[in-house]
Amino acid sequence: MPAKIIRDPVHGDVFITEAELELIDTPEFQRLRRIKQLGMSSLVYPSANHTRFEHSLGALHLAGRLVSRLGLSQEDACLLRIAALLHDLGHGPLSHTSEELLARYSDASHEKLTAETIAHSEVADVLHSHGLSPGEVVRVLEGGAGYLSRMISGEFDIDRMDYLVRDAHHTGVAYGVIDLDRLINTLHLRDGLLVVEERGLRAVEGLLVARFLMIPTVYLHHTSRIADAMFLKAMEMAVELKLLSFRELMRMDDFQVTCFLRSAGGYIGEIGERLDHRRLFKKVVQLTWNSLGEERAARLIELRSRVDRLARIERELAEDAKLEYGYVLLDIPPEPSYQEQEAPVLVEGEVRRIGEVSPLVRVLRVAQKTHWSVGVYAPEEHVAKVARVAEALESYLT
Amino acid sequence: MPAKIIRDPVHGDVFITEAELELIDTPEFQRLRRIKQLGMSSLVYPSANHTRFEHSLGALHLAGRLVSRLGLSQEDACLLRIAALLHDLGHGPLSHTSEELLARYSDASHEKLTAETIAHSEVADVLHSHGLSPGEVVRVLEGGAGYLSRMISGEFDIDRMDYLVRDAHHTGVAYGVIDLDRLINTLHLRDGLLVVEERGLRAVEGLLVARFLMIPTVYLHHTSRIADAMFLKAMEMAVELKLLSFRELMRMDDFQVTCFLRSAGGYIGEIGERLDHRRLFKKVVQLTWNSLGEERAARLIELRSRVDRLARIERELAEDAKLEYGYVLLDIPPEPSYQEQEAPVLVEGEVRRIGEVSPLVRVLRVAQKTHWSVGVYAPEEHVAKVARVAEALESYLT
Amino acid sequence: MPAKIIRDPVHGDVFITEAELELIDTPEFQRLRRIKQLGMSSLVYPSANHTRFEHSLGALHLAGRLVSRLGLSQEDACLLRIAALLHDLGHGPLSHTSEELLARYSDASHEKLTAETIAHSEVADVLHSHGLSPGEVVRVLEGGAGYLSRMISGEFDIDRMDYLVRDAHHTGVAYGVIDLDRLINTLHLRDGLLVVEERGLRAVEGLLVARFLMIPTVYLHHTSRIADAMFLKAMEMAVELKLLSFRELMRMDDFQVTCFLRSAGGYIGEIGERLDHRRLFKKVVQLTWNSLGEERAARLIELRSRVDRLARIERELAEDAKLEYGYVLLDIPPEPSYQEQEAPVLVEGEVRRIGEVSPLVRVLRVAQKTHWSVGVYAPEEHVAKVARVAEALESYLT
Amino acid sequence: MPAKIIRDPVHGDVFITEAELELIDTPEFQRLRRIKQLGMSSLVYPSANHTRFEHSLGALHLAGRLVSRLGLSQEDACLLRIAALLHDLGHGPLSHTSEELLARYSDASHEKLTAETIAHSEVADVLHSHGLSPGEVVRVLEGGAGYLSRMISGEFDIDRMDYLVRDAHHTGVAYGVIDLDRLINTLHLRDGLLVVEERGLRAVEGLLVARFLMIPTVYLHHTSRIADAMFLKAMEMAVELKLLSFRELMRMDDFQVTCFLRSAGGYIGEIGERLDHRRLFKKVVQLTWNSLGEERAARLIELRSRVDRLARIERELAEDAKLEYGYVLLDIPPEPSYQEQEAPVLVEGEVRRIGEVSPLVRVLRVAQKTHWSVGVYAPEEHVAKVARVAEALESYLT
Repeated sequence: MPAKIIRDPVHGDVFITEAELELIDTPEFQRLRRIKQLGMSSLVYPSANHTRFEHSLGALHLAGRLVSRLGLSQEDACLLRIAALLHDLGHGPLSHTSEELLARYSDASHEKLTAETIAHSEVADVLHSHGLSPGEVVRVLEGGAGYLSRMISGEFDIDRMDYLVRDAHHTGVAYGVIDLDRLINTLHLRDGLLVVEERGLRAVEGLLVARFLMIPTVYLHHTSRIADAMFLKAMEMAVELKLLSFRELMRMDDFQVTCFLRSAGGYIGEIGERLDHRRLFKKVVQLTWNSLGEERAARLIELRSRVDRLARIERELAEDAKLEYGYVLLDIPPEPSYQEQEAPVLVEGEVRRIGEVSPLVRVLRVAQKTHWSVGVYAPEEHVAKVARVAEALESYLT
Repeated sequence: MPAKIIRDPVHGDVFITEAELELIDTPEFQRLRRIKQLGMSSLVYPSANHTRFEHSLGALHLAGRLVSRLGLSQEDACLLRIAALLHDLGHGPLSHTSEELLARYSDASHEKLTAETIAHSEVADVLHSHGLSPGEVVRVLEGGAGYLSRMISGEFDIDRMDYLVRDAHHTGVAYGVIDLDRLINTLHLRDGLLVVEERGLRAVEGLLVARFLMIPTVYLHHTSRIADAMFLKAMEMAVELKLLSFRELMRMDDFQVTCFLRSAGGYIGEIGERLDHRRLFKKVVQLTWNSLGEERAARLIELRSRVDRLARIERELAEDAKLEYGYVLLDIPPEPSYQEQEAPVLVEGEVRRIGEVSPLVRVLRVAQKTHWSVGVYAPEEHVAKVARVAEALESYLT
Repeated sequence: MPAKIIRDPVHGDVFITEAELELIDTPEFQRLRRIKQLGMSSLVYPSANHTRFEHSLGALHLAGRLVSRLGLSQEDACLLRIAALLHDLGHGPLSHTSEELLARYSDASHEKLTAETIAHSEVADVLHSHGLSPGEVVRVLEGGAGYLSRMISGEFDIDRMDYLVRDAHHTGVAYGVIDLDRLINTLHLRDGLLVVEERGLRAVEGLLVARFLMIPTVYLHHTSRIADAMFLKAMEMAVELKLLSFRELMRMDDFQVTCFLRSAGGYIGEIGERLDHRRLFKKVVQLTWNSLGEERAARLIELRSRVDRLARIERELAEDAKLEYGYVLLDIPPEPSYQEQEAPVLVEGEVRRIGEVSPLVRVLRVAQKTHWSVGVYAPEEHVAKVARVAEALESYLT
Repeated sequence: MPAKIIRDPVHGDVFITEAELELIDTPEFQRLRRIKQLGMSSLVYPSANHTRFEHSLGALHLAGRLVSRLGLSQEDACLLRIAALLHDLGHGPLSHTSEELLARYSDASHEKLTAETIAHSEVADVLHSHGLSPGEVVRVLEGGAGYLSRMISGEFDIDRMDYLVRDAHHTGVAYGVIDLDRLINTLHLRDGLLVVEERGLRAVEGLLVARFLMIPTVYLHHTSRIADAMFLKAMEMAVELKLLSFRELMRMDDFQVTCFLRSAGGYIGEIGERLDHRRLFKKVVQLTWNSLGEERAARLIELRSRVDRLARIERELAEDAKLEYGYVLLDIPPEPSYQEQEAPVLVEGEVRRIGEVSPLVRVLRVAQKTHWSVGVYAPEEHVAKVARVAEALESYLT
């Protein structure tokens, strides 16, 4: 008998054990109710107000299904479920929106923050009280626990299975619909490796293409990228001005960060108001992967880690357009990642990489680049002015 | 060609005209993005984070479908769509949660506040600039525009059609599924009356039963009622202590009100923290309609409008349990309303009331009372203590 | 590991054991692929072409869910699953359409025919070869196995849960949507009784209302009733003329019976062609329960079992309208049944009847009668003629 | 006001005009009720019993949506809707299963048969009586009417949009889910060309990938291919033995052809029984595109049109395995087609081919070949015997 049943619109009834219920009842986990899963995306897809809270419950549920499917030991089962439940505990406000700041202000990853949160909070107490080791959970989340780790974060992981279907449900975008039953019911453990049977190949292709199509349509939609860039600049300034520390920021929820923006004066307050009223900056210039070419694109991506250099470019662009710093934003997304190629598939009894057997998956590596582009944004009223300057964007970059 | 298309997970593509887009872009309308449709319900149904914003777009969409179905004039069409879009503009934070305060601190209805918001904001300017009259829109919303008003708020209205389906989509509760196509495609205008054909009778029954089942399952779920009661008491205190005015409160959004609770000290701050961490009061006593009997129930409902009397009872209960005021809450919901009986149906060419032709609808009037109950709530650690006092609840009430 | 996984659009992946797979592979079970679940309903809802085959798999799947939920013994589990799988084996062509003939030509029930089919076919061999007893399975199906029997056919049984959702999926009618998760996860075994917890009450009400709304909308839609009546008259004649025996008829599938009708000459062949081309008879007269009054309605229902009397009335009506026998059809449906009232619910620890605690369920008993009516049908070209005669229908009946 | 509304589980209410209703009421159209959309696929996906009838209604509905979207003239609108409604009138029994015979016994295409059916039946009379020209409708269906023809059969046509979603609904396979709203609402007519806007590109990619994934999962599932091959061989023999003519065969419905198989003796009757009881042949050998290489695969595909040669090979294989002709089947599917590349997309104001702008679509051309394979099938009891012979399959082929 479960300690509790929670209703989820994606998976139906989700069963919760006593230990899990106590974990859910910690302040650290309840905070996830106030972290939107898709950050600024609700400015584009108005119903995308779902949070990390229900996503985490969904991940727990899928962990349970995997446990049954693979016949995991009681111990593994418990560990996997709890790791799935807690995997997003370290998220900052607005999910991925704040994650960009991690790269700039910290050498910690989002997983690292999750580990810290687990270790230094009521969560650890609850785990101990149930004879569970916080260290073990962290090991699963940080990748050190073999197949258990791959189930949380790998090629066909619980995290992705849940968020694709959930994001489709809440945005209304059809591409995220995937065949969960087929995916789960064709998974196997083979020599400690999580592999999918050949007859599950279409389901994996479906999953990877779904993610591929969701990227430009939802995850990197240009409007939410602009809102992200505005928010990031405001937070950057707040940190620089020591209005709050980076660590404080990462522990906020969406409510706090919104109220912080509103209550701040000057530029930060203005961005807060603009986000509230959806008076977003506009795209002035867009450089696509194809227009840039492989080499120049790579150099731009390198810039991402050189925060001072980026700020200087933005400052110069603004000055030349006779604007203050912060009114010209340069947005360089990270390079699209390609690990999907590596997903192991069982073909005629042998473990192969999916990239070898599926031309469809193979092409995603190249095709993803068409979704990548660099953008320059400015307030609507200054677009023309900035456009004149940004025409020569390349000269600023070199 | 629409000025914009917005994707909705319930209705698919929603088409927006230029005037509607400008209305959506006002701060008053954007605020609805931050007013949860179901207030505290997300504490029970974690995915119920949808807002008045997307519900209003959904109402607009259904208005458009009705316009086509009934062949309304261009003028009526425009008016109905805009009224549908703006019908929730006056909602306070957390939707119905704050609406309870209206009865206590104001003689204004929620419709009245909407009218004020339309008249005294950018909304009026936008309407004027498109040759539309704010007064006309308000007239539709306040019930003075015959069938147009009934379409917004009547027996089978746009508002209800949208929220039932939407709430089902986001809570995952199946009961809200209704046959929108059948409902809309069997509606007629007859002598200025909105009637449903006989072959649409099942669809109307379906709608009314859906609402009936959603009430105890979602809208009056005891956990969200407890959270509502806690929130209301905190806000009542804030108004009494003049920390903010009732009008200010009603103009807040969910973010502001949450941050206000958090930043307040004392009882109000404690309630804020409890809501954040879902450490809710527990039910101590419950009196059902059946256990009370018609007459006593009626007398209790009368108490609702006598705010001072209610406060005194709560104060006495608390004192006798050796607790401070605010730690024993008495929750008396409004009497279930029965207007559904009146919905006009076209049977063999004659307009009849649905209550006459449908035994199923007729019984809802009585059956609804089984969903009504009075509750006494207190912090978990004090439940035993309060229970002893509240056993004699009736003596406090008289 | 399941022996096989079959994909179902309603339940997703359905897991099948080896024994079940062998049962599915018998000719008796494969025949169900060619028996439409809803008989003539596809003449009204064109997509309602689903068959007893997938419904039986769905019932098996729900049996499996019940087994897990209730923690049944291995033996009970196996028995329940197989009984669910085989419960419709005795259906004649076009499902309920042919079932009407049972009452007229046989004292056997549909369950009786299923029992016979199980006992005298390959099915029994397969059961024996897996150490299972056909007699035990039959006992479950015929009601002699307590809670196991109730799970197959009772107030909230597997059969109904599957067909409501499945019929909704294939007709597109929304009313059949029920909360399967809630229903199943609130069921309990208590002293050998299958009861639903109080918090499952809404789900049961939802189920019963869904069925209530599906009856007039789908199951007793007047157009499929007309097609049923035509088919029945043709088959009656075929049996009377000894073109085939009643038993042969009941073993046919939809394909055979269709080809039989087509290849027959005279009236039977004409009906076959009319059904093929959807040139259905039309309703001439309709007498509702209300117009008749309780007593006269009851007397009409009595007529159902007096086949000769019914035929004589039809013959007289036809003669007076100067038509041949078979061109005026008198259709008297069975009295709506009311067992739903009896469903046991656990309220505050006590087992109560749902009819006692739910006014909504209580009213269904009365309300169902509004769905019942007697019809007289004739070919379109003769409607006027027959109408003149049938005006005096009551005089024929007495 | 529509003359009739028909409920469809995929599109909801479908509106029908008077002329369309009369067309639906012709015997030729009613016959489509008895032609399964997916032929033998229900042997794999038990719920895939949907027919060409509801698919044709769905196509009509989508035609109506396109008409509104593109603002077509009254005349074009009427023509497109009717062409969509009638586009499958020429299908033989079991849809594509019998279509294979066309290539062998006739130089007519399936479109040609549709044209004949329209011209020489009641359909033409109905069209004339509404002032419509059968010739015009046929011109649209045969490709001579520019964009109207492309809407029925092109890169993103009505036919495909409907069947993908419908097949997903009835099989339960998720891949067929496509974004109909996005697809339709981003289509444009530009200089008489049907093009999709750039922001509809993901929707088109989604459509094409959906089809790509449905091919191996449903349309070319090896089990239904085996059943197809068995059926085809039986029908070939029936035609050779002059038990019926090819033209008669193509006018049959699924019921007739099933009864024909059953009533025939010898091999044909055996196949009928095997299909009824799902005792299918098994795959003995499979040659994939990759294992064969481009050139040899091409030579095999050439064999398809040389019916005598194919029969001789099958005969030799059977003889060498000491079996009668018909018990070794050689199944060579047609070459996967690649027209998708050509779909016109509007990129920055210019019409481009989708193959140029979408690497994902480009790869489908190559990737489709992984779904193609040649199979040799034989009864289960003879698989070992045939396997020994078929090892040297290549020598038979040359």
